Amino acid sequence: MATQSPRVLTIGIDFGGTNLRVAAYQPEKGVLDSIALATRLHAGPQAVVEDMCDAVLRLLEKHAHVGELAGIGVGSPGPLELPAGRLHHPPNLPGWDGFHLLGEMEKRLRLPIAVESDANVAALAEYTLGLGKELGVDSLCMLTLGTGVGNGIILDGKLWHGSTGMGGEAGHMTIEPDGALCGCGNNGCLEACASATALVNAAELLVATGKAPGLAKLKNGDARLTALTIAEAARLGDKAALALYVKTGTSLGVGLAGLINIFNLPLYVVGGGVAESWDLLSPSLFEELERRSYVYSLTAPGRAASAAMPGGGTRVMRARLGPEAGLLGACILPLYQARSNASEPIGIATRVH
Amino acid sequence: MATQSPRVLTIGIDFGGTNLRVAAYQPEKGVLDSIALATRLHAGPQAVVEDMCDAVLRLLEKHAHVGELAGIGVGSPGPLELPAGRLHHPPNLPGWDGFHLLGEMEKRLRLPIAVESDANVAALAEYTLGLGKELGVDSLCMLTLGTGVGNGIILDGKLWHGSTGMGGEAGHMTIEPDGALCGCGNNGCLEACASATALVNAAELLVATGKAPGLAKLKNGDARLTALTIAEAARLGDKAALALYVKTGTSLGVGLAGLINIFNLPLYVVGGGVAESWDLLSPSLFEELERRSYVYSLTAPGRAASAAMPGGGTRVMRARLGPEAGLLGACILPLYQARSNASEPIGIATRVH
Repeated sequence: MATQSPRVLTIGIDFGGTNLRVAAYQPEKGVLDSIALATRLHAGPQAVVEDMCDAVLRLLEKHAHVGELAGIGVGSPGPLELPAGRLHHPPNLPGWDGFHLLGEMEKRLRLPIAVESDANVAALAEYTLGLGKELGVDSLCMLTLGTGVGNGIILDGKLWHGSTGMGGEAGHMTIEPDGALCGCGNNGCLEACASATALVNAAELLVATGKAPGLAKLKNGDARLTALTIAEAARLGDKAALALYVKTGTSLGVGLAGLINIFNLPLYVVGGGVAESWDLLSPSLFEELERRSYVYSLTAPGRAASAAMPGGGTRVMRARLGPEAGLLGACILPLYQARSNASEPIGIATRVH
Repeated sequence: MATQSPRVLTIGIDFGGTNLRVAAYQPEKGVLDSIALATRLHAGPQAVVEDMCDAVLRLLEKHAHVGELAGIGVGSPGPLELPAGRLHHPPNLPGWDGFHLLGEMEKRLRLPIAVESDANVAALAEYTLGLGKELGVDSLCMLTLGTGVGNGIILDGKLWHGSTGMGGEAGHMTIEPDGALCGCGNNGCLEACASATALVNAAELLVATGKAPGLAKLKNGDARLTALTIAEAARLGDKAALALYVKTGTSLGVGLAGLINIFNLPLYVVGGGVAESWDLLSPSLFEELERRSYVYSLTAPGRAASAAMPGGGTRVMRARLGPEAGLLGACILPLYQARSNASEPIGIATRVH
């Protein structure tokens, strides 16, 4: 009988501006158990860290017997300085500027902790358990179209951090130099053009100025429209709603065309709530790619220079994992980091799952 | 007495659409000898390859005795598919689509040959012999503002190729979605906004429409203005000329802000003829970086997250090596590839010079 490798356990924390989710995970079984809490932002960073650590300890108490703890992974809003694990003016966490998230957690838990931006852990999950695994590629760039536009980049099996951990902010590349104001202070960022927030803002403006009577009818009192409601209206033939998705696809296409020209990767993954309406945004997205990226036009599946590429060419696809990507990514982060510290990229043969 | 390591020799080829330069090189002595020819584009690819190979053989005949040949390096216009060494619709080499540059040279010379895009060899030179060496960084992104906008990216000591060798085409990221038409078919590429060609085109348009009388006076009959003439006019107080450089700096700033947000590298180098007027374009460039890249605003020298960075923060600087970068880069390419094949990045301690 072959020797079994010892079973391991991890704890993953999906730390969002609104919700906090903490899960116990085993590679063989997936998520064993999880705790969901509201993020007590009003109570300050120390209180939130206390909530996270309490949840970790509760899960460990219950599940520590199933395997050796490989570590605790945290997906946090950014910008996050690495390896320090310190936040810098995070737009969705007022009062957290300069907060040493990693250090404060280590002080309380005295356990191995790995911190990454939320977009990076989502990309890691998609790479290890989603499309990356499915296509057998060793590099990908993921964009998550949600409240903002998150970005995680994996090159040759490793998360790309840059010098201070702040790489992978393609959500803030400029798409329209004189476009809408972004939370970062710039105008016309991808985030200001193609996030769920941007889509809803544009729809609300049309409603307020009487230019979208169909969408106006869908409004439920004072509540704001959602990306999903707008998509439903578009599918039922509302032209204003469809135009908003076409515009989102166009902006996303401008950004992705740039990223394809810069990186020439085999896989670009689009996740987040807006990507759930892939049918509505992808036609204009691919139109922009053909026009604005000659690297894409040479390397798309079936084209002149695509044959030697893993996955058969430059793929631009909707994410597989959905809203669980962030929590799953946090859960597998300690396993990734252990390999990374050993200078071993997560290759196709050594994936953590 | 310590054993001397054996002396090596390389041959570098700077293959341009107009000129062909071939040099013999030794790491200890630099360029030993060189041959300059016109590129016989009208005679077709085989004739040009024959010219290159003849020049290589002439230099080898003369200099082979000085050391062991480490290889022949070629910097070629792109897009170049790697590792195949095949050109795909190169805009400045009509009739070369699908041409196997590497294979044809190997067939003729039966010697070790390394081929890279011209922008990649220039970046390699700046990394190994220029600013990269000076600042001791292990990653950089270089943009060359010339006829087009070339781009070479070095990450953790290695040229970034992407899946098919076509990475590093930041010259074709979109800066203005409805901007001027680019040679690649897209509108508003960085190349169409910030190359020498774009600068001169904009100046000629102003002259033709009577909007730049100062520049009109500088025109020498039918000859086109040059980036240098326009810069001289700007320095003498010509407002239209200065505005053209300010605009170039702005476009470059939009592009570099995106690249800084995406990569978070310690060094961005700007080369090529337009960069020689750094005094004219850099004020608007840095204004855009502060506004459009929060990664820059957090990591510029002296800022909150800059301390741990090699080189002291995110540096955006004019290239050191000037017009020789392409030829020097081709000369050192065989030395870089030898280390690369041995999976050893060109680290600070093991630079080829």
